[in-house]
Amino acid sequence: MASFLNRRRFTIEWSHCDPAGIVFNSRFFEFFDWATWSLFEAVLGVRPPELAGAFGIEGLPLVDASARFIAPARFGDQVELTSQIAEFRRSSFNVEHQLFVRGRLAVEGRETRVWAVRDPADPSALKSQPIPRDVVERFEVK
Amino acid sequence: MASFLNRRRFTIEWSHCDPAGIVFNSRFFEFFDWATWSLFEAVLGVRPPELAGAFGIEGLPLVDASARFIAPARFGDQVELTSQIAEFRRSSFNVEHQLFVRGRLAVEGRETRVWAVRDPADPSALKSQPIPRDVVERFEVK
Amino acid sequence: MASFLNRRRFTIEWSHCDPAGIVFNSRFFEFFDWATWSLFEAVLGVRPPELAGAFGIEGLPLVDASARFIAPARFGDQVELTSQIAEFRRSSFNVEHQLFVRGRLAVEGRETRVWAVRDPADPSALKSQPIPRDVVERFEVK
Amino acid sequence: MASFLNRRRFTIEWSHCDPAGIVFNSRFFEFFDWATWSLFEAVLGVRPPELAGAFGIEGLPLVDASARFIAPARFGDQVELTSQIAEFRRSSFNVEHQLFVRGRLAVEGRETRVWAVRDPADPSALKSQPIPRDVVERFEVK
Repeated sequence: MASFLNRRRFTIEWSHCDPAGIVFNSRFFEFFDWATWSLFEAVLGVRPPELAGAFGIEGLPLVDASARFIAPARFGDQVELTSQIAEFRRSSFNVEHQLFVRGRLAVEGRETRVWAVRDPADPSALKSQPIPRDVVERFEVK
Repeated sequence: MASFLNRRRFTIEWSHCDPAGIVFNSRFFEFFDWATWSLFEAVLGVRPPELAGAFGIEGLPLVDASARFIAPARFGDQVELTSQIAEFRRSSFNVEHQLFVRGRLAVEGRETRVWAVRDPADPSALKSQPIPRDVVERFEVK
Repeated sequence: MASFLNRRRFTIEWSHCDPAGIVFNSRFFEFFDWATWSLFEAVLGVRPPELAGAFGIEGLPLVDASARFIAPARFGDQVELTSQIAEFRRSSFNVEHQLFVRGRLAVEGRETRVWAVRDPADPSALKSQPIPRDVVERFEVK
Repeated sequence: MASFLNRRRFTIEWSHCDPAGIVFNSRFFEFFDWATWSLFEAVLGVRPPELAGAFGIEGLPLVDASARFIAPARFGDQVELTSQIAEFRRSSFNVEHQLFVRGRLAVEGRETRVWAVRDPADPSALKSQPIPRDVVERFEVK
């Protein structure tokens, strides 16, 4: 069973690039965040600002992020960013991102996020919660 | 004679917003930069990274920027950013930007930019150059 | 009577710069925001995250920002950013910023901000409030 | 033999934070970049914009970056970011970063970077080069 793959296409802007003329590394992590919200919206049909309310969570906080930079992306490049859940665990999951420049893989990324609610014992903190079975199933592509 | 109006639609991302839950002010200036490149591409038919080469310039450096914040833009808002040249002068021009949230004007911005070449007398500096008549005319909407 | 002048020194980072090798314009507006918080902390003696609570406000929302770019700031430049209140009005004020590179003025900026409370009639909105006389006086340098 | 540990202290700004009131993840990767330049400056005694020229390289391109987010950093937090080379290989190296909030580890990061020159066979590309023995030795703390 495959996991839903979301695609997002956009253009590399001047503001994304550094003095070497290529996208500055932290921008890719910003793109990954954009893409994870898009993936959840595409699958769950809920606009990002309503996601937390719709599922009774506080959010999907990131606990781990990584990227491998294979080839540069440059000002004006049309890129495609594909994203899918690589693994659901009890209360956390991995999102894998691949950014393509002219069809060639340029950056691979991974985020680990948690299905989190406000901690009843300490309202300033979050705690993980089991991901509802129904949510997990909706990411499955038959 | 009107000046060409470019429209760019996009979604406000989580990463654009600050702890007040609204777009952080500097992001609007980044959006304006995106939009000016789009406007030039739409009118002159040249991809942004090729603009300088196609017209023998070094770039369109900004000498002045301003914005008026009328209403907030929030995470998930679908916005429309319209941009047009408000005035061409001999070697500089003003771009006016208006950002709409659900059809209501939320931010107004203005950039003043220069048609600039590398200074032959000092290659580390730029100097302004008269904007070609042909370029100016292409922004005019009959 | 002069208005207190705050100074903040920092280094231009690689991440602040664009493919032209100079600070991207929106970053200056981010620097101005840093500097306004510093100015208020220096004068009122309250750490930025405690400012709103200490004065019974929601914040100091920006209603207008502008900058004039006189000379570029480059990667590695040591800069000094000076900030002071140029004018207090009933419920809003102007902050003027000057950024110096090696002692020469490179960027001038201005922010107009509002002394704002949550609107009792509409808790999703802010409304301006008269700035306390005591606050205004503390910015005055005898 | 230990590797030189660089420390950089700074304050979390409003602009670094997202609607959850905590530092947005991509900002940490920006901080890591700041810190790697600082580490090299501290050890090699060369200002960042002169590093490439002083060592005949094009730069230190990033090929891999990761972070583990252990605890949030919030607006106004005074943070300390420590950075050191964890391993030098023939032509690449790992930098390890630790960000502390009030003395407690909040974020751990790692960058893998390459000692890179312009490729003589393809001037649009970079290629790795052995890191000079002398450079490696200067990072060793006796």
